[in-house]
Amino acid sequence: MTTAHQAPGETRPGGRTARTRRAVLTAVSEELADGGFAALTMERVAQRSGVHLATLYRRWRSVDKLVCELLTEMSSDIPLPDTGSLPGDLRALADAIERFYGSAGPRRVLEAVVAAAARDPQAATALRTFFDERLTLAGAMVRRAVARGELPADTDPEAVVAALGAPFYHRILITRRPVEPGLGASAATAVWAAARAGAYALGGGGRCHGGAEHDGPEHDGAPGRAD
Amino acid sequence: MTTAHQAPGETRPGGRTARTRRAVLTAVSEELADGGFAALTMERVAQRSGVHLATLYRRWRSVDKLVCELLTEMSSDIPLPDTGSLPGDLRALADAIERFYGSAGPRRVLEAVVAAAARDPQAATALRTFFDERLTLAGAMVRRAVARGELPADTDPEAVVAALGAPFYHRILITRRPVEPGLGASAATAVWAAARAGAYALGGGGRCHGGAEHDGPEHDGAPGRAD
Repeated sequence: MTTAHQAPGETRPGGRTARTRRAVLTAVSEELADGGFAALTMERVAQRSGVHLATLYRRWRSVDKLVCELLTEMSSDIPLPDTGSLPGDLRALADAIERFYGSAGPRRVLEAVVAAAARDPQAATALRTFFDERLTLAGAMVRRAVARGELPADTDPEAVVAALGAPFYHRILITRRPVEPGLGASAATAVWAAARAGAYALGGGGRCHGGAEHDGPEHDGAPGRAD
Repeated sequence: MTTAHQAPGETRPGGRTARTRRAVLTAVSEELADGGFAALTMERVAQRSGVHLATLYRRWRSVDKLVCELLTEMSSDIPLPDTGSLPGDLRALADAIERFYGSAGPRRVLEAVVAAAARDPQAATALRTFFDERLTLAGAMVRRAVARGELPADTDPEAVVAALGAPFYHRILITRRPVEPGLGASAATAVWAAARAGAYALGGGGRCHGGAEHDGPEHDGAPGRAD
């Protein structure tokens, strides 16, 4: 998948630019495995990859950019299925995500990217652009399902795909447990049942319950219970 | 809610220790609102709160610990409902989460905490402990539902509650969009339908599909498509 922030030279897959990029991203991946995001520096990436520090700074500017590009690169290995039915597609994609995040490397990269986004607006934009593209592409499976009559026409394709991925990111970033076999099957079963129940209807939060009322106190970010 | 890493002095809610804590957490919250996590330092928190830097370091050690404690503090405002039915409880809790993360302050704190966890193992442990406690407490609503016969006995309570929160964390950390009205209703509808379909059955990933097969290539964290 190409991204908006890809440099022109990267379109020659066998060229020197591509080899440099590959060496750098491999070094980033290995550095993350060795020392985690806290220990990642441009200097260490330069040393491990054999690429000049000046080249690194010119092309990537920061470790935040590097980890974003690494996630994009790695995630391109997750195929978008077309099995002929939405339950089949959901299960195939969920299993692919489960395999992807089932090993420590991609989990570590994801964590580094989310941390980078918290401190660097450009990394945040890159992360959002990347996931927007993934959701739009994967949304095709839902649009096909609507065309086949498997789901109502007012289903929000991106909401369905987002719901399929959400349990994995929750597991990795929030409850911080390994992604275990079975999470993909659970996610696929859950999203199929929820989509049939109208949970992802466009312009509303589920046909069963209607929209949410906002009548509670607003939080302004200050703690309110200390004494 | 008390946490395992709470200092003894914090149990006197009206005392000087509690006042210091409140001043510090308010300062952290305001600093995050002004400059984000990237600009947060112990020095700035000391300056804004009027609490000595030495006291800050002695009690909290790092900004990572501070943002974890702030999230714990703020999240204690999210009530755990008991409406008499699981759909009612799910909707009430989802709406409370929606209100909580509907304003920028808590979103910023969450992002800071996840970033802290990526670089500090102690912050990671604090985050995991906090969410483990929340999931166990909120799991009571699912255990009551099982006792009422609303869900099968093999339902995993923590999996149900995790699924209810997952769309919010995905929205904030991954797709990086505001938490809009309707997300709570969607999450509640989705989780209720999914739980009824057996997506959160203990020891398996959904009754419809069975366990996942792991026969694909393993990822080792290195990019594999550069040329």
